[in-house]
Amino acid sequence: MRPNKIKQLWREGQPVSMGWLLIGHSLMAETMAGLGFDALCIDMQHGTTELSNLLPLLQAIALTDTSPVVRVAWNDPVAIMKSLDLGAYSIIVPMVNTAADAARAVAACRYPSVGMRSWGPMRPAQYWGADYLNRINSEVLVIAMIETKEGLENLDAICATPGLDAVYIGPADLSFALGLPPQSDSTDPLHLAACDRIKEAAHRHGIKACLHCSSAAFAADAVKRGFDLVMLTSDVGSLTAGVRTELDDFKAALA
Amino acid sequence: MRPNKIKQLWREGQPVSMGWLLIGHSLMAETMAGLGFDALCIDMQHGTTELSNLLPLLQAIALTDTSPVVRVAWNDPVAIMKSLDLGAYSIIVPMVNTAADAARAVAACRYPSVGMRSWGPMRPAQYWGADYLNRINSEVLVIAMIETKEGLENLDAICATPGLDAVYIGPADLSFALGLPPQSDSTDPLHLAACDRIKEAAHRHGIKACLHCSSAAFAADAVKRGFDLVMLTSDVGSLTAGVRTELDDFKAALA
Amino acid sequence: MRPNKIKQLWREGQPVSMGWLLIGHSLMAETMAGLGFDALCIDMQHGTTELSNLLPLLQAIALTDTSPVVRVAWNDPVAIMKSLDLGAYSIIVPMVNTAADAARAVAACRYPSVGMRSWGPMRPAQYWGADYLNRINSEVLVIAMIETKEGLENLDAICATPGLDAVYIGPADLSFALGLPPQSDSTDPLHLAACDRIKEAAHRHGIKACLHCSSAAFAADAVKRGFDLVMLTSDVGSLTAGVRTELDDFKAALA
Amino acid sequence: MRPNKIKQLWREGQPVSMGWLLIGHSLMAETMAGLGFDALCIDMQHGTTELSNLLPLLQAIALTDTSPVVRVAWNDPVAIMKSLDLGAYSIIVPMVNTAADAARAVAACRYPSVGMRSWGPMRPAQYWGADYLNRINSEVLVIAMIETKEGLENLDAICATPGLDAVYIGPADLSFALGLPPQSDSTDPLHLAACDRIKEAAHRHGIKACLHCSSAAFAADAVKRGFDLVMLTSDVGSLTAGVRTELDDFKAALA
Amino acid sequence: MRPNKIKQLWREGQPVSMGWLLIGHSLMAETMAGLGFDALCIDMQHGTTELSNLLPLLQAIALTDTSPVVRVAWNDPVAIMKSLDLGAYSIIVPMVNTAADAARAVAACRYPSVGMRSWGPMRPAQYWGADYLNRINSEVLVIAMIETKEGLENLDAICATPGLDAVYIGPADLSFALGLPPQSDSTDPLHLAACDRIKEAAHRHGIKACLHCSSAAFAADAVKRGFDLVMLTSDVGSLTAGVRTELDDFKAALA
Amino acid sequence: MRPNKIKQLWREGQPVSMGWLLIGHSLMAETMAGLGFDALCIDMQHGTTELSNLLPLLQAIALTDTSPVVRVAWNDPVAIMKSLDLGAYSIIVPMVNTAADAARAVAACRYPSVGMRSWGPMRPAQYWGADYLNRINSEVLVIAMIETKEGLENLDAICATPGLDAVYIGPADLSFALGLPPQSDSTDPLHLAACDRIKEAAHRHGIKACLHCSSAAFAADAVKRGFDLVMLTSDVGSLTAGVRTELDDFKAALA
Repeated sequence: MRPNKIKQLWREGQPVSMGWLLIGHSLMAETMAGLGFDALCIDMQHGTTELSNLLPLLQAIALTDTSPVVRVAWNDPVAIMKSLDLGAYSIIVPMVNTAADAARAVAACRYPSVGMRSWGPMRPAQYWGADYLNRINSEVLVIAMIETKEGLENLDAICATPGLDAVYIGPADLSFALGLPPQSDSTDPLHLAACDRIKEAAHRHGIKACLHCSSAAFAADAVKRGFDLVMLTSDVGSLTAGVRTELDDFKAALA
Repeated sequence: MRPNKIKQLWREGQPVSMGWLLIGHSLMAETMAGLGFDALCIDMQHGTTELSNLLPLLQAIALTDTSPVVRVAWNDPVAIMKSLDLGAYSIIVPMVNTAADAARAVAACRYPSVGMRSWGPMRPAQYWGADYLNRINSEVLVIAMIETKEGLENLDAICATPGLDAVYIGPADLSFALGLPPQSDSTDPLHLAACDRIKEAAHRHGIKACLHCSSAAFAADAVKRGFDLVMLTSDVGSLTAGVRTELDDFKAALA
Repeated sequence: MRPNKIKQLWREGQPVSMGWLLIGHSLMAETMAGLGFDALCIDMQHGTTELSNLLPLLQAIALTDTSPVVRVAWNDPVAIMKSLDLGAYSIIVPMVNTAADAARAVAACRYPSVGMRSWGPMRPAQYWGADYLNRINSEVLVIAMIETKEGLENLDAICATPGLDAVYIGPADLSFALGLPPQSDSTDPLHLAACDRIKEAAHRHGIKACLHCSSAAFAADAVKRGFDLVMLTSDVGSLTAGVRTELDDFKAALA
Repeated sequence: MRPNKIKQLWREGQPVSMGWLLIGHSLMAETMAGLGFDALCIDMQHGTTELSNLLPLLQAIALTDTSPVVRVAWNDPVAIMKSLDLGAYSIIVPMVNTAADAARAVAACRYPSVGMRSWGPMRPAQYWGADYLNRINSEVLVIAMIETKEGLENLDAICATPGLDAVYIGPADLSFALGLPPQSDSTDPLHLAACDRIKEAAHRHGIKACLHCSSAAFAADAVKRGFDLVMLTSDVGSLTAGVRTELDDFKAALA
Repeated sequence: MRPNKIKQLWREGQPVSMGWLLIGHSLMAETMAGLGFDALCIDMQHGTTELSNLLPLLQAIALTDTSPVVRVAWNDPVAIMKSLDLGAYSIIVPMVNTAADAARAVAACRYPSVGMRSWGPMRPAQYWGADYLNRINSEVLVIAMIETKEGLENLDAICATPGLDAVYIGPADLSFALGLPPQSDSTDPLHLAACDRIKEAAHRHGIKACLHCSSAAFAADAVKRGFDLVMLTSDVGSLTAGVRTELDDFKAALA
Repeated sequence: MRPNKIKQLWREGQPVSMGWLLIGHSLMAETMAGLGFDALCIDMQHGTTELSNLLPLLQAIALTDTSPVVRVAWNDPVAIMKSLDLGAYSIIVPMVNTAADAARAVAACRYPSVGMRSWGPMRPAQYWGADYLNRINSEVLVIAMIETKEGLENLDAICATPGLDAVYIGPADLSFALGLPPQSDSTDPLHLAACDRIKEAAHRHGIKACLHCSSAAFAADAVKRGFDLVMLTSDVGSLTAGVRTELDDFKAALA
């Protein structure tokens, strides 16, 4: 069984760079996965991927050595189990508010006796390898998003959930929870402090802390602040920035 | 009927900026169309769009005032007529080698008695407007690609084809025709000279000249050299450049 | 940000006419949206649209000034939030049985601090406009269906839910709740009385009352009875009636 | 093997009523097929069906006893052979201009030694039945559209093509050929005369004549004039008419 | 209304053979349905079918007299109600742990007053027939999977649920519940005993017992042991076995 | 650039085993590709794959070391060039009747100056590798089907076409050409002789000979007779055989 590259990097003490896929198209997935991220997250919450078009995206990412991550739209066992059956190696669960929420996410990601995942990996045997059953429970990463008031209140209890591997910060929703307008790469002191508080709680409980950023500079700084995984840029984000630069340069050159 | 923005700009003596859509996804289409290009070309030759998924892309582009262009995969009346029925306003036809090829492209774009287009515009009447029949033959632009040895040999005859509105240069295939490796934004003197020769032939016959570029700088320069429309950047191109910059900056910041 | 036309009409004291889309096809959506309804509802409960094909339908409707409404299949935050992210302006939630159900629907439709909607509108910025964040919470309409015995028992409590904008009557399921067979445009006195009772409760709590009809005559009568929005006809309904008439006329003419 | 209902009706001297499918959606196909037409034509020329979504439409129609017809977009052996492999029983070929065109269409519809169709029916054996090979060449109807100037000029030669079963009149394109604006159910004497001339040529050569109409009245009249098959109404046509009536009635009732 | 063949066979005291569809493709569905199974189950839990592509599969199966069964991914009213609206005749619900779970599944499958199913069958009237409303509540089979520790503990209570028609054993998940590795056609005495215990509980409460097998031999034996329905083989299972045999034979013949 | 495994095996003097994909589904593609064939052919002529769903199939096959082959539906440069752009390594062209046909197929598969392929490989650079341009012309295999009377008459001229790599026998269409009913694994002496004649002509001109079989036994025998590549079994073929065996065994065991 192919190992989970995120876990490998973490074992080596390396920070993980992650990209983000909003456009659920298999050529976009292969393109993004081939650009050099350690991991690529397919966003089923605020992106265009549904379970019905997830398989070709995971097949496309598996053509590279980038680790396939799925953010499900909700803490829903169907979405989690199917994503794993189709080939996801890590699951990000949004809006985890309580330790019970986190435990429910963990349970959906692990076969019994640890959890309640149902047996039925869909990909062909040669994709998974003969050691799938023995290794999959420990290869899959379960990552809970802390981004609501209630989540912040239950931060320690969530981080202490057995089987949880990491927490992930969604900065826009966290802004709401802090009474701020939604913002990426926020340098509001209140926001920065909340992020660090989450990171420290995670580390205190022996799990990893991940931050959703929108630029290389902010992401690199986050690594220096101690985050273990950073999301740098999405397909739509890089595209939009890239096209705007081209159009601005074009107009400037002709002006 | 909504006018063809490219024709409007040309009437005003303005150069036209065009983007390029390789990923056939309706959110990508709406995103690209909203970034400020004058026109956006859906590539059915070397992109992932087929006739079966063209409609939502044209609907998405029609949400903006960017002019919808389709490059068909071949000088094929089915592809041309369906693209027009679904809402394209300009058609780029690859590998036009002779005046007969050009005439065939023109015929597929015009209703009789001018051409041989079959009647059956698919979009609802309110999309086209009540004046569709009277205006569509003159609003649609027919653009022939000159990119082969044979096309270069027949340059003048092609440009003289009645009803042809413009020629379009595909630089990679033109490179092959000139005995060069395929290249974008080529500054090889042979390539530059061929482009200028095509442009001059077009202008001599009272039609427009368009150049497929890969950067703002080269495109702006092409406008200064007299080209009437320039393709600046594609979705995949800008995305790839943007992501690579982010990843490089990230690694540099952490080094 | 484009205003919600239903809200505008209601502010002007006008009744709203709505169509219904069962066939989840983007040409059908554009066709129906262009025929003159004030609003068009995409039915995800008993129609063929799923989240995976919702985007092109909303893009198609946005080509017209008809207001896009989505009936989700269930009081499910994922379906509600994604529909809004993709461009719905009003959400109809079926089988609302209690005030808690209604509050849950409202929460999914509003960003904090009012509700619990997660940040991530998918459409391009120019679609939403720069004022999206400030206006969206008040532009989106939340509409609860009253159609079960339990819903009828909790009618006043549901109508009193803070943030709820309207109630909507599903006549077939309401028939079941009243011990009647499912029927459209029912003139059963029991059914008529229940509809009026729901309408009056809504108005008593300062919210609007909407009725799902199957014909112009019944819908116009409902407006006269005080309903604020009426669904007149669906794609499949009008098509079926229209085709049957043609076939009957054809046979009669040949008999 | 299920017989071709059109052929059966013609053997009995009955006229054939046909519907038209522009929206390539399998619920629309099943709905239209169930309303009582003798035949239903899937339009791949000016409708939204491509080869990639043809199969479920043909499966849906096969749930009823309505005969499945396909209008291909062009006289193209790929489209014709695939439509037959997937379950079409009759093929309408547009823009047949010469006897050679007609012969080419016939050849694509018949296995050798009669034609050049390639072997590979895709549907399961039980769908076709054990007698498929022996019967299919004679069950499939090949129908050529006469709708261009050139087609009119070669009318007799086309009708005399061995193996051709019928001609079909596309009234809008025929209008162009006659120097008229495109129109349905045209009562222009020039148009009526051309239609009758085509019908008579067909009958003279022992083949059938089919007319594309837009209403029951015109279609019934065409039958009385001697046409063997009439298209009455399409999905989009009946839907549009039906919805417009409902909206008009609604506004009138409220005025 | 077409009767449910499974119910018919059970009334006649016949065992039912069932196939399994993992590949959600309408040609695969028609092919599998035509091979002679009494019933064919579309697997939405561990197969590739989602609600968005379920309709053409059910249309394809309806071309044969094989009874269409759907295994939903979860005890979710949306999935159950839509599957029924689209044409499923039997619903298998995974991971039923308690009598309340079973009652919830039953309620989603029956219209009021028996259950809470919402009115809106999507298929055309002629598919269902005029007696749909009167018969559907009794034609639809509700089948609960017993496959978890908790389900085993509540076995009798689940089997006693009013309206439940049968229980279904998922052997792999049941293996987990028994502390065994997941296995098909298990002959582990613990597993065999659990299966028989479930079967006897079902029969004691007057409902049927179904077993998911992976081979004809094991399935036939299960019938002899008293099971009322057996799943024999899936599309992927038979394909994989068939191809491996061909490749082995080929290599052996060349060795 | 990943080498073409078929070419490698042929260089080593090994026969090539090939599977056949009729069901255009990416899980089916990955499953078939993982079972041990040297090559897997996606059939666009008599299978359900169109250009619009080809990409995910090629991505899925690329997850294995099975060589991806595409049979296009016709000798059409669009289909050939797009298949190559999307990742096919070998192209089988049906119904090649003349040397001109074969030359046209070769031209579509090779960039200038050898052929007329247009530049624009769609897959990401890391998929193809940096040496793509230098190697692709020689890695791609062009394979012409000999299966018509005219093809047999021009056998030598076709085999002598510069750049053609192999011929492929479609036994069903060849049966027609020989005046026989379509049949797989035909042992009719006339058919066997024709196959051997084609094989010998190929070898005489230094190219390879391939045979489409339907069983391991016939395929192994073909290798012994000197064929260089044999198609053994398709997805639908193996599935159908496998399911029938299971059902027969089941009925026999219960009888």
